[in-house]
Amino acid sequence: MPPTDPAAPTDPAALTAALIRCASVTPAEGGALVLLEDLLSQAGFACTRVDRNGTPNLFARWGARGANRSFGFNGHTDVVPVGDLAAWTHDPFGAETEGDWLYGRGATDMKSGVAAFAAAAIDFVRETPPDGAVILAITGDEEGDATDGTVALLDWMAGQGERMTHCLVGEPTCPDTMGQMMKIGRRGSMTAWFTAQGVQGHSAYPHRAKNPMRALTTLLSRLPDTLDAGTAHFDASTLQITTIDCGNPANNVIPAKGSATVNIRFNDSHTGAALADWLRAEAAKVEAETGVTIATRIQISGESFVTPPGELSALIARAVQAETGVTPELSTTGGTSDARFVKNHCPVVEFGLVGRTMHQVDERVSMTQIHQLKSIYSRILKDYFA
Amino acid sequence: MPPTDPAAPTDPAALTAALIRCASVTPAEGGALVLLEDLLSQAGFACTRVDRNGTPNLFARWGARGANRSFGFNGHTDVVPVGDLAAWTHDPFGAETEGDWLYGRGATDMKSGVAAFAAAAIDFVRETPPDGAVILAITGDEEGDATDGTVALLDWMAGQGERMTHCLVGEPTCPDTMGQMMKIGRRGSMTAWFTAQGVQGHSAYPHRAKNPMRALTTLLSRLPDTLDAGTAHFDASTLQITTIDCGNPANNVIPAKGSATVNIRFNDSHTGAALADWLRAEAAKVEAETGVTIATRIQISGESFVTPPGELSALIARAVQAETGVTPELSTTGGTSDARFVKNHCPVVEFGLVGRTMHQVDERVSMTQIHQLKSIYSRILKDYFA
Repeated sequence: MPPTDPAAPTDPAALTAALIRCASVTPAEGGALVLLEDLLSQAGFACTRVDRNGTPNLFARWGARGANRSFGFNGHTDVVPVGDLAAWTHDPFGAETEGDWLYGRGATDMKSGVAAFAAAAIDFVRETPPDGAVILAITGDEEGDATDGTVALLDWMAGQGERMTHCLVGEPTCPDTMGQMMKIGRRGSMTAWFTAQGVQGHSAYPHRAKNPMRALTTLLSRLPDTLDAGTAHFDASTLQITTIDCGNPANNVIPAKGSATVNIRFNDSHTGAALADWLRAEAAKVEAETGVTIATRIQISGESFVTPPGELSALIARAVQAETGVTPELSTTGGTSDARFVKNHCPVVEFGLVGRTMHQVDERVSMTQIHQLKSIYSRILKDYFA
Repeated sequence: MPPTDPAAPTDPAALTAALIRCASVTPAEGGALVLLEDLLSQAGFACTRVDRNGTPNLFARWGARGANRSFGFNGHTDVVPVGDLAAWTHDPFGAETEGDWLYGRGATDMKSGVAAFAAAAIDFVRETPPDGAVILAITGDEEGDATDGTVALLDWMAGQGERMTHCLVGEPTCPDTMGQMMKIGRRGSMTAWFTAQGVQGHSAYPHRAKNPMRALTTLLSRLPDTLDAGTAHFDASTLQITTIDCGNPANNVIPAKGSATVNIRFNDSHTGAALADWLRAEAAKVEAETGVTIATRIQISGESFVTPPGELSALIARAVQAETGVTPELSTTGGTSDARFVKNHCPVVEFGLVGRTMHQVDERVSMTQIHQLKSIYSRILKDYFA
């Protein structure tokens, strides 16, 4: 959907619809990045496909490389699978509309966000060419492993002398109403898998066995659900038991083996490494007490991070307030996002649409709010370069 | 295998072999009770098949119904399945021998025990007809649900005015060496199934979910492995966690539902009902604390019971000592047996062979020890009616 009149404003709802029609379920590119590359190239952006290990990524810059003032947008065009297709009332890749609603997989997460910042950037550089650079770093793998997505873009940028001085991630951040929330950081996330190996036996002769399930419940009962009382910018760190399994069919048999998983969301009073040490130490105590062997595997998905309230968050809050009348809350709640990678390079804040239907059947977005989001992003660019 | 010479001593090893050749895996009769009925009828026993709901049982009495002194033997001819047939070195239903070993499913549990008491009873009533009755109550369902096995025999006997004044169950009771142990009682056994229903959710938003696995670990951590310090005739009561499961594939999702099972072996300081009340009360506390619903299903397989050391245990100990030189320990350890039903009718003690290979691949029995067991049972009968 290249606009027919190059001087006309770029329509972010039409661009969202065009992106929805690209079936870009991770890891498929689906035509989404190709479409954006065409559009941005025509608008004078220097575009580079930064694919790594088959993962498609697009880098686009208007202005000079390494400019002293360079505002970046980050987002993704890949989407999660459709799920129960029969439950959808609209084709998930049809971009059908009903009143103000535009339906489709990725409608909120986050083809609308990408469309809004692309449209805002294209119109901004044409109307008010800034003294600096505008960068769009768009990945096709945020919903998957994300190992060759935004990380690959950032690695490549560092190698090429490309840089963003500030960055906005366009993920949906508002729980219920437009403008309600921005994210200035995220809690860290980690998962621990415990595999307990005991000695099988008859439940009438427990002294001849070593019960791995008792070892696991002892360990888990020492791992509290809440790890602290929260910090200046963060809620409390939380721990959840997500699995316990042994698959033992006989109720008079002590099983040989069992497993459990916990997932921790942690704030800036912890590090993944310190939590891993704690978990391993607790497992070792239970091993010593029970004679059951507990193997612990830990995956740290991301450390906690925060861009403290300041220039960037104030800039975004002013733009949101001006366009919606709402003062956004500065939050660090929720899951992880690619902001966890960007924060290693420059201050980063996330702001986007209402995310209520993301990952659901009949995912949909208000077209009015897409236009509102473009206006907010446009105002951010104007103020940033003013 | 009817003996060719009716005056010759009955060979308990040959009878064990004949019974092993009957493939009587629960609930199949396999010809085992038919064989015994033929043999006992020829020896002057009044035999009745007391089948109930398809479960085969055999009642045999020598002497008058309702005699004032009536010694009973109880046992079973059904066997557990073969298991891994390829791992057997001998046909499990072939009754093959190797040196002193007789191989086959049921060799120790407990075709040898049935053969030994049948042989002892047949020879005893022929050689020294007693002033009283000798009863054999043999079931084809001890390894299964046991709902229509020995219980059906006892129900039928009560209805018919048949009674045993004392009873010996011929289950294998010796852990390692012949004569080592008799059982004067058993702990009770019960199983509790807990099903916890919470509210599913994302592990990053635990306040919107209710974690059933945490509810289960909290509950299980309040249920100790040992419930008391033991009593005069019993070891401590024990509790074992035999399963915990939820089958949740996603480590960032709090599951909706989980389940756990505990198995309790309890002594005479508890009743099944009191323990059930305790478990339900603990589950209710966790429900109140967590908002997770916990459904508790309880099955009491048997209450604890003991025949205090006295006339019967002394009689058996003397016979064991005389035939083996070993003084048997009076124990209440181990799982359950049909003695839990018999104890409601008369004093009951269990004594039999070394059970080491029971339920295993290559189950086998020492033929020397079968003959020894017959001698012990014969001596018990002689002393009882002396």
